[in-house]
Amino acid sequence: MQTSIPNWLMQRAFLTPERIAVYDGQGKKTFMELHESVMKRARQLANTGVRKGDIVAIFMKNSVAMIECIHALHYIGAIVLLQNTRLTSHELAWQLKDSGAVYVIADDELADRIEGNIRVITMSELSALPEENVEFQQYYHFDDIATIMYTSGTTGKPKGVLQTYENHWWSAIGSALNLGLNENDCWLAAVPFFHISGLSIMMRSVIYGMSMYVMRAFDAKKANELIIGGKVTIMSVVSAMLQKMIADLGERRYPETFRCMLLGGGPAPKPLLEVCKAKGIPVYQTYGMTETASQIATLAPEYSLTKLGSAGKPLFPSQLRIEKDGQVARPYEPGEIVVKGPNVTKGYLHRPDATAKAIRGGWFYTGDIGYIDEDGFLYVLDRRSDLIISGGENVYPAEIEAVLLSHEAVEEAGVTGIDDETWGQVPCAFVKRKRGYSVTVEQLKQFCQAHLAKYKIPKQIYFVDELPRNASQKLLRHQLKQLIPNNENGAL
Amino acid sequence: MQTSIPNWLMQRAFLTPERIAVYDGQGKKTFMELHESVMKRARQLANTGVRKGDIVAIFMKNSVAMIECIHALHYIGAIVLLQNTRLTSHELAWQLKDSGAVYVIADDELADRIEGNIRVITMSELSALPEENVEFQQYYHFDDIATIMYTSGTTGKPKGVLQTYENHWWSAIGSALNLGLNENDCWLAAVPFFHISGLSIMMRSVIYGMSMYVMRAFDAKKANELIIGGKVTIMSVVSAMLQKMIADLGERRYPETFRCMLLGGGPAPKPLLEVCKAKGIPVYQTYGMTETASQIATLAPEYSLTKLGSAGKPLFPSQLRIEKDGQVARPYEPGEIVVKGPNVTKGYLHRPDATAKAIRGGWFYTGDIGYIDEDGFLYVLDRRSDLIISGGENVYPAEIEAVLLSHEAVEEAGVTGIDDETWGQVPCAFVKRKRGYSVTVEQLKQFCQAHLAKYKIPKQIYFVDELPRNASQKLLRHQLKQLIPNNENGAL
Repeated sequence: MQTSIPNWLMQRAFLTPERIAVYDGQGKKTFMELHESVMKRARQLANTGVRKGDIVAIFMKNSVAMIECIHALHYIGAIVLLQNTRLTSHELAWQLKDSGAVYVIADDELADRIEGNIRVITMSELSALPEENVEFQQYYHFDDIATIMYTSGTTGKPKGVLQTYENHWWSAIGSALNLGLNENDCWLAAVPFFHISGLSIMMRSVIYGMSMYVMRAFDAKKANELIIGGKVTIMSVVSAMLQKMIADLGERRYPETFRCMLLGGGPAPKPLLEVCKAKGIPVYQTYGMTETASQIATLAPEYSLTKLGSAGKPLFPSQLRIEKDGQVARPYEPGEIVVKGPNVTKGYLHRPDATAKAIRGGWFYTGDIGYIDEDGFLYVLDRRSDLIISGGENVYPAEIEAVLLSHEAVEEAGVTGIDDETWGQVPCAFVKRKRGYSVTVEQLKQFCQAHLAKYKIPKQIYFVDELPRNASQKLLRHQLKQLIPNNENGAL
Repeated sequence: MQTSIPNWLMQRAFLTPERIAVYDGQGKKTFMELHESVMKRARQLANTGVRKGDIVAIFMKNSVAMIECIHALHYIGAIVLLQNTRLTSHELAWQLKDSGAVYVIADDELADRIEGNIRVITMSELSALPEENVEFQQYYHFDDIATIMYTSGTTGKPKGVLQTYENHWWSAIGSALNLGLNENDCWLAAVPFFHISGLSIMMRSVIYGMSMYVMRAFDAKKANELIIGGKVTIMSVVSAMLQKMIADLGERRYPETFRCMLLGGGPAPKPLLEVCKAKGIPVYQTYGMTETASQIATLAPEYSLTKLGSAGKPLFPSQLRIEKDGQVARPYEPGEIVVKGPNVTKGYLHRPDATAKAIRGGWFYTGDIGYIDEDGFLYVLDRRSDLIISGGENVYPAEIEAVLLSHEAVEEAGVTGIDDETWGQVPCAFVKRKRGYSVTVEQLKQFCQAHLAKYKIPKQIYFVDELPRNASQKLLRHQLKQLIPNNENGAL
């Protein structure tokens, strides 16, 4: 029999009605107040015609209203498709069409970016709608899909990752069993809810009965104030955010109330970790992805000295191993990171082939490369071999290459990540022009702007005569960096 | 697909090998050391012939060795039958036979109490056995039976409650989501592991990676020392234990490190709660039973003032309601307490009828009486209408009546609980003698001693001419107290 848990926010509103669920710059809401706002929004959504089982997209920036919309859709029993607000109209339209979403709820100022045959509900429109009675989901069934998030992959075609209620539940429980659970916890959500790093904070909030503080956009100064003031006890960051916070922090120190800086989004630069150690910042390095509904391994700070650079061990309900040539690798032998656990996705929306390729024998093949030391600590070497992580955003070379290749002057294109002080990595492109065509770097960047979110646009574009390929003409992205003129190498 | 989690202790030994798993008066063991002892015991048990799927009884008092035996049986994949060490040989033999247990592991000094056709393994025998290789369970499957505990019921015939890995898991998680989870937590196990109150501490220890302190027998003075010394942060008690601790405590106070006194085992006397309030003891009143794998509702201390006497609200994954005449009762209307959740048993061993009677439509009918106030807080009025809770032990009138009726001089017998300062309640019997037979109170008590554990022997026996019965001759146990001679009423 499948597990069903009483509707999470509803149960919280019943069990701990007066506890604070959410703060933002302006005010706060208790779990009961949040539940009441959510019921209202659910009835307004019902008025527009949203029904149980519908896929409804959300195209919003972090806000209490966004949290309410996600919960409201779950109250109705709809599936929430979370869309990155940095996508171009074209990227967004493709994903909406692929998913079969019937509605998209959007911030007013983002609504004009939505194209295609889909019903757009702006927040001001929604807020003005009359309420219509609708049956609320009294239980969340573990097998049901709660959310969908698109990720690209080595093929370059974005895929919708299915996240069940079970995935979110176990992710939250696994995290609590590792990080603990204190009565006064307040988790700062300065990462977007359309990413799993942000959404998982929202899920933990209702499952734990824990306060969260919502930031519309990351603000290093404000984040430091919240931590120093004792308001925030845990925060999720990527390296770029942490770097800005440390720059702003100066000689100040965080108080003891701040107990966890959860650092994800790709391997962290060692100098950054060393600075954190010196400043006594309790950094928990973590490894996770959309497909694992957030963390699957996390390093406890007690090991931050001895295991510097490691992403730690799996969370209690999960497992992790390294495979090389179909065999479990020996300690220190690099190979593909393979994971298992009730927080791991069942697969991709409408992609049985991609699902079958990624999930084999109950294990999910991440495509990421790493090794495990003799004590069982994971070290991530490379994300999905050619994945670029720029400021916490996943950037897939194949997607950028596809755009470049659609330009009439481009014959071949290869993209790889290069180190960047601010963003960790940025994409860098290598282009072979067609004979008889001329195009400038600037023109290609402008072309990319029309088709790609800003963070995906190559920071550098080099024209080359030939791209490195293997015998079967497969592009060798790892060798691209060698094409960078020597005097520029490392200076980017 | 059923959920499977890596073998809990094994996972702990991998994730947090150096953390302390267990203390007793003599020493301590880390999770890795415990895992190593458990592997050894499992291999020794394999040598005696214990196999996966066997039901193996444990007849032991609290000790690290007992914890090791329980884990070792789970490593092998055997089902652990936990036996109350206060049972008589006769009671024990009946349960062993009923369960189909093939082995019983016993403390040396208890072994001679075991009768019947069963293989007895004493602890000294086990410790001396050579090891034999055996395959360890790498995963715990949620649907598998982990443990069995016998409880009686209104029929008087003990029934084996099936507790799955899922039940234990969710019980531990529900508790953590309510009580929180601190890095320095250490839970004092002074209640027996053969009761769910004790066993659930052991389960939490491996699931949380939390230290526990094991007491062979409850010692109020020692318990106070452990709390005052800051070693113990949480403790499970029944009223009788708490009363002794308060008496020993005197003018001293518990430090802030002690964060939870979990008080179960039946409705608590209000004067006791008031004393605790005055002394600043963080009492969490709780309601639970063998069938719910420990707590199903717990009162947070923030409500100990305003909701004095309440057992609180359900744990997050669970639900609770009051039924009266097949309808959900209104606030304050007493009725049967009905519960639901993944911590609730699937039923009773070899008792499809009793299971079908207790579990209807996914809800478990506890037989206990209570009401819920307008805020959703549970108040337990009466345990299973005629259940007597004496010093935390469940005593079933029907079982005692059956023994009395087996005496040649007894024609009718009725048993009920009467208030007792030390034990909360004690059994009291009313006997109608057969015409022409003579028997004294003392003789009947001696007769009971041969058949019943000490705590079940009636403290008072009254001879009466007639027992209160309804039209269909059903004994009205609630009216028995009225038969107590006036001058003795309340003085017992």
